[in-house]
Amino acid sequence: MTDTQRQLALLVEGILGSYAEQGNINHLDGSNLPSRAAVDRVLGDLLSLVFPGFLGEDEVDELSSRYFVGERCARSLRALERIIGRAMGIQCAAGKPARPRPVPELHAEAHTHAIDLLAHIPTIREVIASDVRAALDGDPAACSAAEVITSYPGVTAIAVHRIAHHLYRRGVPLIPRMMTELVHGRTGIDIHPGARIGDSFFVDHGTGVVIGETTHIGEHVKLYQGVTLGAMSVEVSERSRATKRHPTLEDHVTVYAGATILGGDTVIGRGSTVGGNVWLTHSVPPGTTVMLDKPSLRMFTNAG
Amino acid sequence: MTDTQRQLALLVEGILGSYAEQGNINHLDGSNLPSRAAVDRVLGDLLSLVFPGFLGEDEVDELSSRYFVGERCARSLRALERIIGRAMGIQCAAGKPARPRPVPELHAEAHTHAIDLLAHIPTIREVIASDVRAALDGDPAACSAAEVITSYPGVTAIAVHRIAHHLYRRGVPLIPRMMTELVHGRTGIDIHPGARIGDSFFVDHGTGVVIGETTHIGEHVKLYQGVTLGAMSVEVSERSRATKRHPTLEDHVTVYAGATILGGDTVIGRGSTVGGNVWLTHSVPPGTTVMLDKPSLRMFTNAG
Amino acid sequence: MTDTQRQLALLVEGILGSYAEQGNINHLDGSNLPSRAAVDRVLGDLLSLVFPGFLGEDEVDELSSRYFVGERCARSLRALERIIGRAMGIQCAAGKPARPRPVPELHAEAHTHAIDLLAHIPTIREVIASDVRAALDGDPAACSAAEVITSYPGVTAIAVHRIAHHLYRRGVPLIPRMMTELVHGRTGIDIHPGARIGDSFFVDHGTGVVIGETTHIGEHVKLYQGVTLGAMSVEVSERSRATKRHPTLEDHVTVYAGATILGGDTVIGRGSTVGGNVWLTHSVPPGTTVMLDKPSLRMFTNAG
Amino acid sequence: MTDTQRQLALLVEGILGSYAEQGNINHLDGSNLPSRAAVDRVLGDLLSLVFPGFLGEDEVDELSSRYFVGERCARSLRALERIIGRAMGIQCAAGKPARPRPVPELHAEAHTHAIDLLAHIPTIREVIASDVRAALDGDPAACSAAEVITSYPGVTAIAVHRIAHHLYRRGVPLIPRMMTELVHGRTGIDIHPGARIGDSFFVDHGTGVVIGETTHIGEHVKLYQGVTLGAMSVEVSERSRATKRHPTLEDHVTVYAGATILGGDTVIGRGSTVGGNVWLTHSVPPGTTVMLDKPSLRMFTNAG
Amino acid sequence: MTDTQRQLALLVEGILGSYAEQGNINHLDGSNLPSRAAVDRVLGDLLSLVFPGFLGEDEVDELSSRYFVGERCARSLRALERIIGRAMGIQCAAGKPARPRPVPELHAEAHTHAIDLLAHIPTIREVIASDVRAALDGDPAACSAAEVITSYPGVTAIAVHRIAHHLYRRGVPLIPRMMTELVHGRTGIDIHPGARIGDSFFVDHGTGVVIGETTHIGEHVKLYQGVTLGAMSVEVSERSRATKRHPTLEDHVTVYAGATILGGDTVIGRGSTVGGNVWLTHSVPPGTTVMLDKPSLRMFTNAG
Amino acid sequence: MTDTQRQLALLVEGILGSYAEQGNINHLDGSNLPSRAAVDRVLGDLLSLVFPGFLGEDEVDELSSRYFVGERCARSLRALERIIGRAMGIQCAAGKPARPRPVPELHAEAHTHAIDLLAHIPTIREVIASDVRAALDGDPAACSAAEVITSYPGVTAIAVHRIAHHLYRRGVPLIPRMMTELVHGRTGIDIHPGARIGDSFFVDHGTGVVIGETTHIGEHVKLYQGVTLGAMSVEVSERSRATKRHPTLEDHVTVYAGATILGGDTVIGRGSTVGGNVWLTHSVPPGTTVMLDKPSLRMFTNAG
Repeated sequence: MTDTQRQLALLVEGILGSYAEQGNINHLDGSNLPSRAAVDRVLGDLLSLVFPGFLGEDEVDELSSRYFVGERCARSLRALERIIGRAMGIQCAAGKPARPRPVPELHAEAHTHAIDLLAHIPTIREVIASDVRAALDGDPAACSAAEVITSYPGVTAIAVHRIAHHLYRRGVPLIPRMMTELVHGRTGIDIHPGARIGDSFFVDHGTGVVIGETTHIGEHVKLYQGVTLGAMSVEVSERSRATKRHPTLEDHVTVYAGATILGGDTVIGRGSTVGGNVWLTHSVPPGTTVMLDKPSLRMFTNAG
Repeated sequence: MTDTQRQLALLVEGILGSYAEQGNINHLDGSNLPSRAAVDRVLGDLLSLVFPGFLGEDEVDELSSRYFVGERCARSLRALERIIGRAMGIQCAAGKPARPRPVPELHAEAHTHAIDLLAHIPTIREVIASDVRAALDGDPAACSAAEVITSYPGVTAIAVHRIAHHLYRRGVPLIPRMMTELVHGRTGIDIHPGARIGDSFFVDHGTGVVIGETTHIGEHVKLYQGVTLGAMSVEVSERSRATKRHPTLEDHVTVYAGATILGGDTVIGRGSTVGGNVWLTHSVPPGTTVMLDKPSLRMFTNAG
Repeated sequence: MTDTQRQLALLVEGILGSYAEQGNINHLDGSNLPSRAAVDRVLGDLLSLVFPGFLGEDEVDELSSRYFVGERCARSLRALERIIGRAMGIQCAAGKPARPRPVPELHAEAHTHAIDLLAHIPTIREVIASDVRAALDGDPAACSAAEVITSYPGVTAIAVHRIAHHLYRRGVPLIPRMMTELVHGRTGIDIHPGARIGDSFFVDHGTGVVIGETTHIGEHVKLYQGVTLGAMSVEVSERSRATKRHPTLEDHVTVYAGATILGGDTVIGRGSTVGGNVWLTHSVPPGTTVMLDKPSLRMFTNAG
Repeated sequence: MTDTQRQLALLVEGILGSYAEQGNINHLDGSNLPSRAAVDRVLGDLLSLVFPGFLGEDEVDELSSRYFVGERCARSLRALERIIGRAMGIQCAAGKPARPRPVPELHAEAHTHAIDLLAHIPTIREVIASDVRAALDGDPAACSAAEVITSYPGVTAIAVHRIAHHLYRRGVPLIPRMMTELVHGRTGIDIHPGARIGDSFFVDHGTGVVIGETTHIGEHVKLYQGVTLGAMSVEVSERSRATKRHPTLEDHVTVYAGATILGGDTVIGRGSTVGGNVWLTHSVPPGTTVMLDKPSLRMFTNAG
Repeated sequence: MTDTQRQLALLVEGILGSYAEQGNINHLDGSNLPSRAAVDRVLGDLLSLVFPGFLGEDEVDELSSRYFVGERCARSLRALERIIGRAMGIQCAAGKPARPRPVPELHAEAHTHAIDLLAHIPTIREVIASDVRAALDGDPAACSAAEVITSYPGVTAIAVHRIAHHLYRRGVPLIPRMMTELVHGRTGIDIHPGARIGDSFFVDHGTGVVIGETTHIGEHVKLYQGVTLGAMSVEVSERSRATKRHPTLEDHVTVYAGATILGGDTVIGRGSTVGGNVWLTHSVPPGTTVMLDKPSLRMFTNAG
Repeated sequence: MTDTQRQLALLVEGILGSYAEQGNINHLDGSNLPSRAAVDRVLGDLLSLVFPGFLGEDEVDELSSRYFVGERCARSLRALERIIGRAMGIQCAAGKPARPRPVPELHAEAHTHAIDLLAHIPTIREVIASDVRAALDGDPAACSAAEVITSYPGVTAIAVHRIAHHLYRRGVPLIPRMMTELVHGRTGIDIHPGARIGDSFFVDHGTGVVIGETTHIGEHVKLYQGVTLGAMSVEVSERSRATKRHPTLEDHVTVYAGATILGGDTVIGRGSTVGGNVWLTHSVPPGTTVMLDKPSLRMFTNAG
């Protein structure tokens, strides 16, 4: 055994020792977790069902659409069953140790969830179609649905949210969160799958947008980049997860870039406008415009 | 036919029905759209022409550079013709129905655009070289061009912008926007391909930067993360797309993190500095420093 | 020779001419730079050693873990030697021309760095395990380590930082920066590898977070999206790179979304809380809460 | 320009000069030939329609079979149109220069051929099913259809032949030959797509089998490795391509390893058996057994 | 519905109808067969354990060999369990319907077979090492083990045989045959996994070699291309599968190209030599040389 | 440690022990052998230079051919240097231990070989063009160069031979043999790279053809499947490798399927024809036709 071999053996034993000691961040029981790649693949298939012909390099046309849809449905069905089944098997460390559920029961429930999601693709598409129209209407630079679907991160993010939210509402664990995090990584838009969002929703630019779990958003709402719809810090610690911790935006509200709206009791009334960088922790009545007061700026000419 | 087969058939028909009803978000006429993947590939080839030897795993050296360049040019030429030709064929839904143009005419125009872009790579590289120097000068932590080109998202974003802007100015639809959106997704920096940006431009960190379509930026300008150069909300609705809706930054302006500068008539004079989080909707003369006034903070000691 | 061939030849010569003129942004001496893809692969291997079984599609279990670890260690060792060796060969343009070092010396040093990093994986994992616990404790929505490791961008970002910081402290050039930039591109969280960060660190949502090179962060610190820990502008130009230019956060500090803390002398005392959007350029004593004063807003009801 | 660069430039010009001089073996007009890879892909799709569930890693089940079939049919249809269209555009150098046919005419004909092939998959499968049964019956070692379909090269070769022969009979150029050559490369069994072969055909082991273009083979025929059904040399030069140059084997004939049967007028009568290594250039009546006479061997004991 | 859509629908229903009618050549119950690709992958892993460092692009060295071996063993173990388990689940159509065995029983048996094979890799390597020496000794053109292992199809074929034969002897169905067929397709050498072959075996060139199921081959035997060790035709029909139907070659026998040796009772005595193209259906005593008698040729000068 | 872990550890140690004992069939010093995959890639590049536009899916046209050629030349140059350099480093076990040569010397020689091969591509193409013409002339079924180049295994085999033979004559070890073995595996045609073959050479069907190292073949020679040009067995043992052990075929010789011609002194005179299955170990004068005498067959009618 050479010196380097001895060294390598030591490195290995060191890391194995660490697996024994920090057991919470290794997962050594085979492939029983839903992998990011598996979730990403099924999300890609679902998006190709939602926006057929727009995203991938598959050729879809009138001729083949029935079979394209059937083949993707069957594949998604099997993949959803697998990842949902695995996700349901993970114990929630935070809660009290749940009774482990028998595998066939988990499988049957995963199957039901998968069928249910696919059965709702048409209604999900209805809402997403309204989102695409909102993007076309909301941005004077937008020219065609093709442009909006292929190039607007806000449209991708809300489409994924609508799929993830459907699973979230039926109680599917982990998967909805993995889906929204995948699109967060690609768009910078972080919408918790628990948020309830009405139709014709549009996020422009979008980087830095955060929408919390118990947010309620009405119809025809428009957000710009960097908007936070969050919890007040005090609430985090004092309220339980079930409480509404994030604000409500009624229909036809617009929130400009960098604004922050906090609190579960905060309601932005119908048709209101919240200006850029505004920090808002209380409700405003319908039809209100809230702007930063004339900014308190200090200006001076550079010496020289 | 089993129950599950019946179920699957229902799912499929449901989704097909949805394609008939929400026709705007499906595209069932084959592969006649430029796909994201195709735009990404050609963008990768163009960047490898701009920064040869820095990005990929291709071995490029003095020996092979002529052939490397020729092979990439020929490949890019064909790919650009294809994606530009497809993009020009898409009807702009917003406008009045344009007369469909004959395919040979589209193809000839696409060819001209492709040749023109490749012919301008040298002048585009001149400007990008100034951007790289600006990054080296602007960040005390930067050590070599290699570091800046491989690790600074701002450098990637401006390089892609300079390519996309060239196409935008010649009237190529959709492709410039798809290119800038690809790099937005990777860097969090969202520069509309319409923005005019002088040489030696540097964006540091960059996440959350938004630069609008009609922005004018002079030379030696430097922006930090989270800066918005945007339109005032009122303008969006009342002005046409052609109007200048976004601000002008003259030469040697620096804008710190999180600042927002809005409005088509807003001009930040040469050599000015805009401090972090400043919200500015009016012009300032050359040589001005604008900072938030002493922040109005409320401080108290935690009870204990 | 046809017209188009002549045209293509001209394009090629134009670009080659540009390589001669803008020599700083081409790199034509073969494959002697560490490529992004190579750094990404080794980072993926290191993360799979840190979080075995969570990230990839590899099946790892008790049975195979020793060999999985050994195989990844050996592969990482070779890959680290190669990329570190290449990075050490790059001249720092900013400094005075360093004496080129002999290849065997570079190789030996790269080997030492690679062994050293792998030998510290166990201690790095200890700290990362504390970060995962902090995420679980800090977010009422988090349910299991699996959820946190697979779906929280902040956890990925800090794990990569801890690896990159180890290399940074030993003086490895370029590679640490390429690693953190890779994860910045995926999460929107930009932590300079030079920052010193105590254990149990948590970044929630994270898009737009920037943490500067000389930042010091204590234990149990929590940041939200859009937080900047930066340098004051004046400092950038007047101080050398070695000076501490970024703030210090003591243990148990929380900083809410969009807050900006600047300056090398700024110290946020133990247990303090900095509210959302706060702009802070001076120190605060332990146990302080700093919030925006009641926001100076202008509100009016929409006409009509 | 360095020496090596000059050298490389010379190499390149040398090869380009060779393209000008030996024009028959370069093809420099873009991608207008059917590539081996494209033919291989479509052949793979067709085989997956013929033997669904046996060959690939696709999961096909009762649930998804309709959509699997539809998706493969649509994909094959498009791919067949493309490769057949290209093949029909190639001038046959041997014949007199054919009038180049207009593209739409070629496309329409290619479409007709593609549809026609897919419409005959059921009847082709009927015959292939008989071949599989023949393999099961003919080899005492064979145990299941699964074994025969996955592990018997003779079954693959005859299945590909039946597809290629269908195209050959309809006059599709080049593609049938490329298909049979692909399977020849994998199995060592070289069946010209022109050969007419009755049902329940079985080739055991198969390496080295050659079956010529105008061979006629009845039902329930069985061949072993190394059998040649060829033309007599004299015939090759004196007869035209249209003449029957290869033998006829009537029903229930068996030919053992290494036998050679030559000549367009040679008829092996129903139920005959041709022994190993037999060389046969004349007809034999039904029910004949032909064997090598007691081999004329010379034997001696090794000196020792 | 357009004409072509109707046409496609008809194609699909036609093929589905064919699945109902020719049920023996479709397999529509999901992925429960071992796929060729899966068998090929595990075979590749096993060969990389047998010839580490010679075949793939993996870097294996003294440093990493333990982990390389462990990682491949673990991976092969899981893969073998899976494919053997599936193969054991296939009913042998030929036999009487076996009682379907419970899954856990199949799994346990598959596990035992997988462990057993890996445990015998060392003894299998011992024999293969003798085969490599035989190739080096037997071919005056061979220069190094590297040349023999990377470039001699006979060496690959016998190595695969030794693995497959191990499984065959333990009664594993289908997999051994799929393994030898994979290497038959690549080398043209068809060795039935049932054949018993002594050490130091060498096949030169090899195309067309066929070695039957019940062949016995002693030590230091050498075969050239086109040799058949087969069954006499009469035997096929009259004897059961269990009978010895193929010949026996004692130690130190050499058989030249194209020779055919048939029959279960045929024994080629120790040290004998069988000349090219010889057809032999009876035993010869030790030390015999058998050659074609002076070939009965007809020669004439071409008329001129 | 569980039972299975202990078991796995034992498996691993068993295999490692075997590496120590059978050292000749493992190669544990890293990646210093030319891998099959590397040789295959460079062979693919060389063939695409020989038959541009015919084989791959690259689009090559008049426009891009210069750059296509240059890029492939540069890539092949680097790859050839690497694999030839590695091959030259392997000790020939058979010979007396050669003095290990210094790496720069090996590298310089590998470079010279690589340049030399590329410089001879034009003359190699000249000969291959004659081979393609011979195939077109020799097979009445052949219609176009496209058909011959894409579908005739004999054409691929001779093209690879001509490349490999060039390297062989210059003394490059191992690589020529690996190249011809790659094409042997795909076509069943085994031509030793040492054979000297005149122009206009054609092999029809080809499976089972073997052409030995010291064979000399004139111009316009044509071989059918299963032809062996080999050494007499006695010669193998008694003569040295340098002796001519394989036959000579003068110009315009045709050899039909299955014929065997043996012996270094055997000369088949110009214009001769050797019939199928003939076994020939002596010379024949020019213009001779050699055929099997009326086959000695035994025929009988099957008992009814």
